[in-house]
Amino acid sequence: MTPSLERILILGTGLLGASTGLALRSAGFSGSIIGWDKDASQSDLALTAGAIDSVAADPIEAACASQLILLAAPVYAILDWMKQLAPVLSNDHMVTDLGSTKAQITAAGNELFNQPGRAGFLAGHPMAGKEVSGASAAEGTLFHNAVWIFTTDENQPPLQPDAMHHASEWRSWVQKMGCRVLDLDAHRHDELVAWVSHLPQFLSTALTALLEEEVGGAPELTAVGGRALREMTRLGSSPYSMWRDIALTNTDAIAAAIHALEQRLAHVRENLRTPELRSEFEQANRFRKG
Amino acid sequence: MTPSLERILILGTGLLGASTGLALRSAGFSGSIIGWDKDASQSDLALTAGAIDSVAADPIEAACASQLILLAAPVYAILDWMKQLAPVLSNDHMVTDLGSTKAQITAAGNELFNQPGRAGFLAGHPMAGKEVSGASAAEGTLFHNAVWIFTTDENQPPLQPDAMHHASEWRSWVQKMGCRVLDLDAHRHDELVAWVSHLPQFLSTALTALLEEEVGGAPELTAVGGRALREMTRLGSSPYSMWRDIALTNTDAIAAAIHALEQRLAHVRENLRTPELRSEFEQANRFRKG
Repeated sequence: MTPSLERILILGTGLLGASTGLALRSAGFSGSIIGWDKDASQSDLALTAGAIDSVAADPIEAACASQLILLAAPVYAILDWMKQLAPVLSNDHMVTDLGSTKAQITAAGNELFNQPGRAGFLAGHPMAGKEVSGASAAEGTLFHNAVWIFTTDENQPPLQPDAMHHASEWRSWVQKMGCRVLDLDAHRHDELVAWVSHLPQFLSTALTALLEEEVGGAPELTAVGGRALREMTRLGSSPYSMWRDIALTNTDAIAAAIHALEQRLAHVRENLRTPELRSEFEQANRFRKG
Repeated sequence: MTPSLERILILGTGLLGASTGLALRSAGFSGSIIGWDKDASQSDLALTAGAIDSVAADPIEAACASQLILLAAPVYAILDWMKQLAPVLSNDHMVTDLGSTKAQITAAGNELFNQPGRAGFLAGHPMAGKEVSGASAAEGTLFHNAVWIFTTDENQPPLQPDAMHHASEWRSWVQKMGCRVLDLDAHRHDELVAWVSHLPQFLSTALTALLEEEVGGAPELTAVGGRALREMTRLGSSPYSMWRDIALTNTDAIAAAIHALEQRLAHVRENLRTPELRSEFEQANRFRKG
């Protein structure tokens, strides 16, 4: 019988990677958690916070010596890791990720992994985050009550036996971290998050950039906005570095969602003095009650 | 010397009116607070919560028997009260309000009040609120750290002596309730809140109504959005009844702000794959640090 997960490597110990280490510990994981980050100050922070037990000297060697490798980085960095790791890992390894878009990663997983003799790959995406990045913002409770999505696509082969075993164990750790697991087709995932995650982000960025132009020079005036303004602009702090990859790997779905919102705003604007405004408020009220 | 404020009437004991009663008590106001609401269940709730000491049988009679009358209602209801009260009050009365737009109310205040022999009128707007209405949501801490704006316009006469005295005392109660006081020209107020308060609201309504159409039928999918989605759609619960009056009394400034956002969104959409996206994120980041 394949042994239980005893050695996990987290590649990328920023907000999500370090939070996963902390959450695994809180959930009772007693094996080793090794970490690595291209920015050594991030892995040091994760070590100090107890999110990892040790910092890997060489990430590829550490991957070969681990059972499960968690890729916690922006989408293109994850795709790079996948290309580097696929040739050096074997069928007793399992790779999973936390990437924000899933069509390209899921396709690469089936191409580079999930074949006889190769490591297994399970594409994942926890729907949790913050507007700030870095290990210093990590929290073991970040995933409480969040949805953790796993994706497949139409080219998905059945997982190999070792990979199947590790994948099933990883799913149960995800649940112990406080998440609800949701399985989705990778393309459906990308369409859905375009509406419920990417649209709110790009909208908040556009609103916040606009307000910086209009009232940004007068902090005493922005204070007037109160809680509503703070909330609607919180995501304005989000880092470009992460969202660039999302914009590049889910462009069409995001553009369609933004375009639909432009039209909706024009509709509201044209109806500020008509009873149609009531319908808009009522439809919005329904969503919040749903 | 004019006596201190000992008898305050709150006309409209919903969220803001009842919260003001609670906040006055917390701040140490020991005089009488009388309340009235067109919906008797709201004044009963305010009474039970300790926001008011008694419910007025007749609001006009109660106004004549009070020193300060606080109009806590949507904008058009405030304008109606002003027309009803001006002829029956005298120069030892002071009227103030919590209305969301200020140009029309400030102008009406100077036309109907603030004349020799007439009651004084001080136009006010506390920048605090919730997405839910009603006395049951009232809180004595609602105004902590909020900005409470007072407005004048180019036709403002000097306040009469009694009104001046009451106004100055009311300003000091507002500060004791935990607010910073900000004096603004009424037109400048309406322009400013179009950006920092009305735009976030109409935007959230448009986004939330759109999401109801796109993903509203599948609650398990909206759960995927997490905190970011909850925040960006919270204002989607706001009641049409209040926002209708705002849309009708600040139409041009709101339409201009919405239109500017439509253009900004189109700019983001057209630049999802270009370096210009970085500039948008950086400009948004600056606002949040400002």
